[in-house]
Amino acid sequence: MNQWALILAAAILGSGAAIARASEPEAASPAESNVRGAPSPNIGADRTIHFSLKAPEANSVQVAGGDGLGAGPFPMTKGADGVWSVTTPPAVPGFHYYWFVLDGVSVNDPASQTYFGYGKETSGIEVPEAGADFYAIRDVPHGEVRAKWYFSRMTGAWRRALVYTPPDYEKNPKRRYPVLILQHGAGEDETGWTRQGRANFILDNLMAAGEAVPMIVVMDCGYANKAGTAPLAIGPGVSRETIRIAFRTFEDVIVHELIPMIDAAYRTMPDRDHRAMAGLSMGGMQNLFVTLHHLDRFSYIGSFSGPVIPGINTGREPQGNTPEEFDSKTAYEGAFADPRAFNKRVKLLWLGVGTAESPMFRSSISSAATALQRAGVDVVYFESPGTAHEWQSWRRDLNEFAPRLFH
Amino acid sequence: MNQWALILAAAILGSGAAIARASEPEAASPAESNVRGAPSPNIGADRTIHFSLKAPEANSVQVAGGDGLGAGPFPMTKGADGVWSVTTPPAVPGFHYYWFVLDGVSVNDPASQTYFGYGKETSGIEVPEAGADFYAIRDVPHGEVRAKWYFSRMTGAWRRALVYTPPDYEKNPKRRYPVLILQHGAGEDETGWTRQGRANFILDNLMAAGEAVPMIVVMDCGYANKAGTAPLAIGPGVSRETIRIAFRTFEDVIVHELIPMIDAAYRTMPDRDHRAMAGLSMGGMQNLFVTLHHLDRFSYIGSFSGPVIPGINTGREPQGNTPEEFDSKTAYEGAFADPRAFNKRVKLLWLGVGTAESPMFRSSISSAATALQRAGVDVVYFESPGTAHEWQSWRRDLNEFAPRLFH
Repeated sequence: MNQWALILAAAILGSGAAIARASEPEAASPAESNVRGAPSPNIGADRTIHFSLKAPEANSVQVAGGDGLGAGPFPMTKGADGVWSVTTPPAVPGFHYYWFVLDGVSVNDPASQTYFGYGKETSGIEVPEAGADFYAIRDVPHGEVRAKWYFSRMTGAWRRALVYTPPDYEKNPKRRYPVLILQHGAGEDETGWTRQGRANFILDNLMAAGEAVPMIVVMDCGYANKAGTAPLAIGPGVSRETIRIAFRTFEDVIVHELIPMIDAAYRTMPDRDHRAMAGLSMGGMQNLFVTLHHLDRFSYIGSFSGPVIPGINTGREPQGNTPEEFDSKTAYEGAFADPRAFNKRVKLLWLGVGTAESPMFRSSISSAATALQRAGVDVVYFESPGTAHEWQSWRRDLNEFAPRLFH
Repeated sequence: MNQWALILAAAILGSGAAIARASEPEAASPAESNVRGAPSPNIGADRTIHFSLKAPEANSVQVAGGDGLGAGPFPMTKGADGVWSVTTPPAVPGFHYYWFVLDGVSVNDPASQTYFGYGKETSGIEVPEAGADFYAIRDVPHGEVRAKWYFSRMTGAWRRALVYTPPDYEKNPKRRYPVLILQHGAGEDETGWTRQGRANFILDNLMAAGEAVPMIVVMDCGYANKAGTAPLAIGPGVSRETIRIAFRTFEDVIVHELIPMIDAAYRTMPDRDHRAMAGLSMGGMQNLFVTLHHLDRFSYIGSFSGPVIPGINTGREPQGNTPEEFDSKTAYEGAFADPRAFNKRVKLLWLGVGTAESPMFRSSISSAATALQRAGVDVVYFESPGTAHEWQSWRRDLNEFAPRLFH
């Protein structure tokens, strides 16, 4: 190789190791979540998934991941070429986080894009759902997703919100739009709804079909720590009071900083009739916490797989060791105490859950929905068939929720 | 723990493994490239870096990465707690890709954000440069970075460009702006210039100081494969003709698809006097390839650490095994043959390189600059002191290049 070829090779390849290229079964396609050109993992027509990793010196490799992958972890076997591989049972359609366990350490698949989940960058696999193209990029007008930095005095730090502007935003420089604030789950960040959730494509498709009104969607980071205080350790066994403090700071950022910033920077309709908020899992919990405390600011409310914790706003622990009863008179500081007034004021209250979610989520959400309905509160209870505590549930929530907004 | 605490824990933590928390030396700070809350890796005042990974069952762990980290790979040692760690020698300031080698496999550090480099998601560490805040997020007006999807008939695929709009873009709905197209290097993608390069903050800071005119910056993906053709394998020993075909498709996308799309979607000044293009490494090679072939479209040209390959546009291999002489009469199909005409037509030709880059890069770039100067071609030759073939060189390039545009 002459010097110029060396320069080209250096310029083009850098010094990084190439991605392992493993032999694959036929009639399988590389996942669209793979990095450019990576043939593995690949997905069969039956939704079995073939994973592989070149690791000649390893003693054991497994693949593990989100509920939708199957029971797992799945032991991989080593071929003569040092490539470990396994074909996992048919997966649930949708997006699943996954990782390899390499000699006991959870590591990413170098062949996969990464997605922020579990508090770190994690591999993910997109398993197609037959016939479902509501979250595909299609030949329709596309909105933009804008990264917007703003300084939060509350937290003493710069924050980044992602802002979806609808396809016609630039073409109508006088038009004003309603706003949906859309929040990610625990361990994720403001990138979740567009990267894992494909919220922008879902909205593009709905708007192109005339099924949703043009709107601005704001996705902020769900973590907020009051300036000058140590980060709150939120984990197993955390107290209600700690949760309350963390959520209250988040609420203050949303209500007193994010919303005014968005209303100043974009052509919004800055009133409660044109403002919705939704979130998934922890984001759903936060959403009920914030919106029910601020019905002066919001008139559409969506909680997607968010545990319903009636006393969360008080920070008080429940008595005894049994599930807290949902009492519509006292829940959320009495927000539902007068059902007639609530129904008049709130145009949509949505509680969603996947039918394959754990009983913890299903029972908390469905029993709250039942109690609210019995009390005469208008609530839409949505079940996503066959999906777990994963993004396919939340994509479906959004696809059904967004058309009900701002009429 | 009662059921509600379990729900909270499940909602907040998911089922993922927690990030290893290692003991760290004092007076060191977590890198700002770490994921939220991760204390490791951390950087001492002397720019030594302490890396750690919990891997009780591993037989060997090393850390390796970009030039700026030092010689490497650095063997890590295992503590009684199963945490492997090492403190590496003082690093060069700036952004460095890195990875762990865990029982022979290159894996990411779960404590680090990932950045697209080497054709995959790779860990990265930001090592502060004393006194340098030109790429910091500062209390100045900030532009937006917009994700813009467009369909390319040339490649038969959807593409995503990232578009920086200056801070005053929304406030001046009639104003039109000049455009800089800014391209990443090999193995990177359209996210490189904002994530690794902090181009948006560099421009925010320059504009706030009045040192650069407000402009739109477009960052596209540097890969393009003609529709219906197999992806070209560009690697060591690749032929000039393969490079030429790949670059020509990229050129066609930029000139015939990206530029018209941008001019239609944004308030640009759509003429050659108000259009610049720059790129780093492979993006610099592409830039010279495209702009010198299309001086009807561009009047400002920047190649940051891009190998200068005088015969690249022809696809012909050089004769023999010695470096190709830069002949200003014939290079790039004679683009410089008439220096007076070139100087009149092109308002800026910029060739940059870091002084710590390998001789391959330095000699190709500096000898071309010398040959051009001798021939009477106006060229700005910029050396970034002490930096290698890494992002700190390119941040400095951009910080010096952008103020010279569009006067």
